[in-house]
Amino acid sequence: MKLEALLFDVFGTCVDWRCGVATAVARAAAARSLDLDSYAFADSWRSKYQPSMQEITNGNRDYVDLDVLHRENLDRTIAEFRVETHFDDEARDHLNRVWEQLPPWPDTLPGLAKIKERFIIAPCSNGSVALMTRLAKFGGLPWDCILGASIARAYKPDPRAYLLSCEMLQIAPGNVAMVAAHNDDLAAARKAGLQCIFVSRPHEFGDPERAEADPADNWEIIAADLQEAAAKLFALQHFS
Amino acid sequence: MKLEALLFDVFGTCVDWRCGVATAVARAAAARSLDLDSYAFADSWRSKYQPSMQEITNGNRDYVDLDVLHRENLDRTIAEFRVETHFDDEARDHLNRVWEQLPPWPDTLPGLAKIKERFIIAPCSNGSVALMTRLAKFGGLPWDCILGASIARAYKPDPRAYLLSCEMLQIAPGNVAMVAAHNDDLAAARKAGLQCIFVSRPHEFGDPERAEADPADNWEIIAADLQEAAAKLFALQHFS
Repeated sequence: MKLEALLFDVFGTCVDWRCGVATAVARAAAARSLDLDSYAFADSWRSKYQPSMQEITNGNRDYVDLDVLHRENLDRTIAEFRVETHFDDEARDHLNRVWEQLPPWPDTLPGLAKIKERFIIAPCSNGSVALMTRLAKFGGLPWDCILGASIARAYKPDPRAYLLSCEMLQIAPGNVAMVAAHNDDLAAARKAGLQCIFVSRPHEFGDPERAEADPADNWEIIAADLQEAAAKLFALQHFS
Repeated sequence: MKLEALLFDVFGTCVDWRCGVATAVARAAAARSLDLDSYAFADSWRSKYQPSMQEITNGNRDYVDLDVLHRENLDRTIAEFRVETHFDDEARDHLNRVWEQLPPWPDTLPGLAKIKERFIIAPCSNGSVALMTRLAKFGGLPWDCILGASIARAYKPDPRAYLLSCEMLQIAPGNVAMVAAHNDDLAAARKAGLQCIFVSRPHEFGDPERAEADPADNWEIIAADLQEAAAKLFALQHFS
């Protein structure tokens, strides 16, 4: 394992999307005196994420950035909750930008800062460069550069998303590790030739029963969070 | 002028390529007991930069990253200085990486840090994402993301290099400013619809007589360095 760079899944792995989205939805609901379960709204919005990307991965639709899919999925979620009349286009555009303002998990900033001392760190997210750049600015995520789906114009788990990220860094996939809290993301990264680091995020979906808190394969590193991942990584590399 | 992001030329504008390259060449020459004018070597190597990109811009050659052009131009420079036998392939590859290790000008880090407080900052360089990422890590350049030629697969002054950088940020070109010490770079950026900020770098080529120290047009901001550019920018925006 000769690592030069680490690529990170972001939603769920580095930031708590559910808490961030629910907080913004609750604020929007309160401003409109709406009685609305903001966590249920966040979960419903997020549940449309994979199916909407799938249409593109299947070839049924040309690539569009995730911001566009999020906006469409927001419309559908608003309809499901029967609050259409309370959100005009401008309010929807505003709410959609919540994905640029999600809180990092408590270990994310110290973990990334430590890893960055020795390695190139970059997101390899399905979020666009625009979204990832603004999210990094909001939360202070210290990326060396922004990579991922919108450069490849292909969504993970499409191998192009991982491989083009490695290519942009001019590093062989075997010398790059994917870091994620999701086993399917890591399975696709491994298939593309990358090393894999699993971090556990039991509270991604609130109830730990709903989370993928356990590794499903013999990933190169398995850690409870990004600080532990950093410690294990430096130990493996025989760094003092 | 409603700015959201600033794109920066890097070689010459943010970093002192001539000093950095000459220092590495001098070190390599000393290790081989070669009597060689390291500044003349740096100038000769750099003089091949524009013509080599021109071949691609003209359509005579498919896009390759600048790292490849730098390496080819190094071979030619080594031949001109008649020191071929002193540099094997590995030594040439090593020397070529000097472009990832160039010193920022003294005002670059404080200027960028100030601008970053209010705006998205990113390089829009002809250097590759790989090169720009490593250069940022070496010098501590605090970019929010890395944009530029290698994402567009087109070299400046091709409008695609500027326009795709804006598109990746999802910001209209008119709300983005290009920052450069080179009038031709700014002229192309303006033609693509961007705002323009000129910074003077009289010592880019050593002798100020050889530099483009004066603005050739009515650029939106004209500054002596990046700290002055930051101050003028914040004043224009009525930031306190």
